[in-house]
Amino acid sequence: MHRTKVTVVEEALDANNTIATANRVDFDRAGVKVINFMSAPGAGKTTLLERVVHELPGVRVGVLEGDVQGSMDADRLASLHVPVTQINTDPSFGGECHLDANMVRSAIPSLPLDQIDLLIVENVGNLVCPAEFRIGEDARVMVCAVTEGEDKPLKYPLMFRTCELVLVNKIDLLPYLEFDLERLLYNIDQVHPDVETVMVSGRTGEGLGEWQEWLARVAAREGAIA
Amino acid sequence: MHRTKVTVVEEALDANNTIATANRVDFDRAGVKVINFMSAPGAGKTTLLERVVHELPGVRVGVLEGDVQGSMDADRLASLHVPVTQINTDPSFGGECHLDANMVRSAIPSLPLDQIDLLIVENVGNLVCPAEFRIGEDARVMVCAVTEGEDKPLKYPLMFRTCELVLVNKIDLLPYLEFDLERLLYNIDQVHPDVETVMVSGRTGEGLGEWQEWLARVAAREGAIA
Repeated sequence: MHRTKVTVVEEALDANNTIATANRVDFDRAGVKVINFMSAPGAGKTTLLERVVHELPGVRVGVLEGDVQGSMDADRLASLHVPVTQINTDPSFGGECHLDANMVRSAIPSLPLDQIDLLIVENVGNLVCPAEFRIGEDARVMVCAVTEGEDKPLKYPLMFRTCELVLVNKIDLLPYLEFDLERLLYNIDQVHPDVETVMVSGRTGEGLGEWQEWLARVAAREGAIA
Repeated sequence: MHRTKVTVVEEALDANNTIATANRVDFDRAGVKVINFMSAPGAGKTTLLERVVHELPGVRVGVLEGDVQGSMDADRLASLHVPVTQINTDPSFGGECHLDANMVRSAIPSLPLDQIDLLIVENVGNLVCPAEFRIGEDARVMVCAVTEGEDKPLKYPLMFRTCELVLVNKIDLLPYLEFDLERLLYNIDQVHPDVETVMVSGRTGEGLGEWQEWLARVAAREGAIA
């Protein structure tokens, strides 16, 4: 029974990887770099996009929004005149808790790939399953808010391990929390040694320059160009 | 293809409900009330248990901890001399993002059902899938931290709709946030009219008396007694 379940899961992930590779080919052909942007609900992903996407010098950004329901985040970003495409994961069941390669594939015809250099995919707010499904991205970034506690890397290690940048957000609240920033950074290092971290505040703007520069570097990476 | 997927999901939920009913029978036979306790990662579930479980007058509490990995929360609660059982969801895949009825069933032989009146099941931190799987509970409670923003009920409506109590946590931070509490309560009411809400702070203790009284009322509900 258990073995059967594992086999089914492995087959599902194999199928996902095959589709992710097909997405990758399409993105490469268009010369678009792709970021899979993940966090727990309410960690501040959308705010951290709002604050930077319209002012990346020389980089045309598009956003793919993944949500169970609604288009609130897409509406927020569209008001910045950035091309935004919405995926809702709710048609089956109470809603899927993550984006997979096939959902992203279904959105590709709606994406203005010839008008952008960098596509940021805002995944469903969840620290478990989004880390398990490749979507054809170049890089994975996660947001970890200091309000969530120091223990999250130890409880959701795959998410921290699979990202190449961890944005530690809401640092403007540190004076008001019983929170040990050194302990969080130590725990991050335990599960993903030497991963890049940037301290940010979507509210005060602290650290956003560094986040912008990181995005610009990803957009400028060498890769297949059409 | 899509239809097939929906059918598979419906069959999985049917199977889950069958097992949840079997759990329910076992809990009823032991005279134990069960609470399914859910939230996003870092909303404060464990702290809200730590603060109340050892001082519910006349109610013997046990806790079942669901985590992807580790036993950090179980260790915190065990130090309060409350019986705690740990389930880890990681054996298959990168980890399941929720508890289902079968995982809870597998833990029943380890639960001291004859020594407790109330079992609180702390689910995996996630606002999507935990709401979709019944485990044989009497009541569902969720924690929504004010640091997560006002929009969560609209983005994760099933979770809010399926709970009979919403604990609005971290209200000690309200002075330091750009957060509209009235807007959150309005949004909660939009997706689950008249659901009970209690404002709490795991840190300052505000509202914990009301949370305790609510738990005591659930423990005292009429139900099948052995």
